[in-house]
Amino acid sequence: METIYEYKRLEDFCKEVFMKMGCSAEDAALASDVLINADLRGVDSHGVARLIGYVRLWEKDRINPTPNIKVVHETPSTATVDGDAGLGLVVAPKVMKLVMEKAEKVGSGWISVKNSNHFGIAGYHAMKTLSKDMIGMAMTNASPLVAPTFSKERLLGTNPIAVAIPTDKQPPFVADFATTTAANGKLEILQRKNTETPTGWVQDKDGQQSTDPYAVKNGGALLPLGSDRERGSHKGYCLGSIVDIFSAVFSGAGYGPWAPPFVSFLPLPEDPVGEGLGHFLGAMRIDGFRPADEFKYHMDNWIDRFRNATPVEGKERVLIPGDQEREMEIIRKEQGIPLLKPVEEDLKSLASKFNLKF
Amino acid sequence: METIYEYKRLEDFCKEVFMKMGCSAEDAALASDVLINADLRGVDSHGVARLIGYVRLWEKDRINPTPNIKVVHETPSTATVDGDAGLGLVVAPKVMKLVMEKAEKVGSGWISVKNSNHFGIAGYHAMKTLSKDMIGMAMTNASPLVAPTFSKERLLGTNPIAVAIPTDKQPPFVADFATTTAANGKLEILQRKNTETPTGWVQDKDGQQSTDPYAVKNGGALLPLGSDRERGSHKGYCLGSIVDIFSAVFSGAGYGPWAPPFVSFLPLPEDPVGEGLGHFLGAMRIDGFRPADEFKYHMDNWIDRFRNATPVEGKERVLIPGDQEREMEIIRKEQGIPLLKPVEEDLKSLASKFNLKF
Repeated sequence: METIYEYKRLEDFCKEVFMKMGCSAEDAALASDVLINADLRGVDSHGVARLIGYVRLWEKDRINPTPNIKVVHETPSTATVDGDAGLGLVVAPKVMKLVMEKAEKVGSGWISVKNSNHFGIAGYHAMKTLSKDMIGMAMTNASPLVAPTFSKERLLGTNPIAVAIPTDKQPPFVADFATTTAANGKLEILQRKNTETPTGWVQDKDGQQSTDPYAVKNGGALLPLGSDRERGSHKGYCLGSIVDIFSAVFSGAGYGPWAPPFVSFLPLPEDPVGEGLGHFLGAMRIDGFRPADEFKYHMDNWIDRFRNATPVEGKERVLIPGDQEREMEIIRKEQGIPLLKPVEEDLKSLASKFNLKF
Repeated sequence: METIYEYKRLEDFCKEVFMKMGCSAEDAALASDVLINADLRGVDSHGVARLIGYVRLWEKDRINPTPNIKVVHETPSTATVDGDAGLGLVVAPKVMKLVMEKAEKVGSGWISVKNSNHFGIAGYHAMKTLSKDMIGMAMTNASPLVAPTFSKERLLGTNPIAVAIPTDKQPPFVADFATTTAANGKLEILQRKNTETPTGWVQDKDGQQSTDPYAVKNGGALLPLGSDRERGSHKGYCLGSIVDIFSAVFSGAGYGPWAPPFVSFLPLPEDPVGEGLGHFLGAMRIDGFRPADEFKYHMDNWIDRFRNATPVEGKERVLIPGDQEREMEIIRKEQGIPLLKPVEEDLKSLASKFNLKF
């Protein structure tokens, strides 16, 4: 059911598609790098599987392949950037550069972005700071699929948070997670397997607990991290809200239920409150707090202690955030990226649309 | 079983006790304000119930009543502060002032604090920014009671995160939550009621699921937000870790299992990796991103939309973070603060120790 592709080949193909959309060679390479990075790190839902989605948005004039990305409001450590409806995959990496310039000058940099769209995996952007001895942060709002605690309605996206922290000899600490119990991509996997979801992932259209993998498709909702009130779903709801506000209310993007949908067949909100999707990107220089070598020595010690914690019976080890993705990246760089049949067919249809080889 | 006390009377008593510990009148008033604010907002576990704990730490020379709180490392937007073993209740409010000065000058301010101790409720500190049209953030690490996903050992505290966001006509958005499924104070309530915990709150000393409210006391652990791996406990583990690293690895405080315990009967770590407990405090000017009136207009709209979401059957309404605490504060300011018998007795014992009236 899966075919393995060398990652470079997929990356080249993405680049060609983005160029056919009108992106510059440089922007196309950047966007492809972000997409393929998701596949390499094992986040298949955010990789080449999404390429056709971007093309469809472009066909509906919802993506500008030659955006004029510009700062519209600024202080030494903060700014708002207008993404000019560019690919989030291009906007976010360019904004990360500005964020790091600010951090270089005044210790930290924080930029809220409006008028963008899906930016791939949050972790990619946060990790760009690591080689500069900075902590990186990336958040984004997203299409409303999540019901706040006690709500029947879907008002928030899966609104991920990524934080990347530099180390010395240890591999870096990289947290990258949706603020829901489970990401939407996991439902798709269960749909294909025809398996029920664990409790606490979804509610049905009436707001009742459900284990139906199609619950969200049928008008239900994903649940905030915590699952239900008794187990702290109000905390996941807080987190998703903070991401939404920092990404979209700060910048002037569409927030909450007004966030534009990723899928092109859903209409844009009729009463928009902002422009496009929003991101929030940040960086802090570690030597803004203490000498970098001291910080990194203690981060290594932190990681070493946690990695060597006694595991519960039946579990091999305690993981450090980022371990699994890093291990997957090593494997997939060498062995290739497995694509499911439907993804492969989407890519073939793009090849035929743009008269490319795949 | 409960006696009601006028909040001003409790506040005055706390102030007298802190002065008996050697705090200046100003510091004693500040510390009392933080403590009583917890009781007023309904977070009883962090209010006057903790007063005796601070006294015991002071008796063991773990609290310095006249600290020289100073910046030890700095950039325009970041700093590290040494709390000089002062009361966290005094250190944190003073650092929040520095944080806001930085935000005033360069758009945002971020200070990591070492050599402090328990700072009361995180929300108190975050909310100090609201009148200045700034977003406030407060985090702290805490005594290790939480097991990372798959770990039998307790390596993290309940490490709370608070975010306060200004509004125009609506009351402010104030999120303030432990990064665990449930806070430790909730276990104490169930112990008194002799009731089992919901699943997903605790594990026993072998790392197995438990519903025993004494599980943590008997060598078990609190669980990260998410409860178990299937429901995203690795995300709660990420959050608790980020709070720990920002608060303690940035600043040079005791991190992870080396965080000093709040209770004076537990010894300090024998191989310390830093000084005292750590906090991370931040502020961002909302006009660092867009004009403040525009931002506040949209925050009101955000809140209005979420508050008016259709609730699921059986639930009255969808809450906005901070609603419950604000409503409780109004009630308790008027009707007083109920104290449980053991708390009342602790306060009476303090009165007798210090020759005060209670």
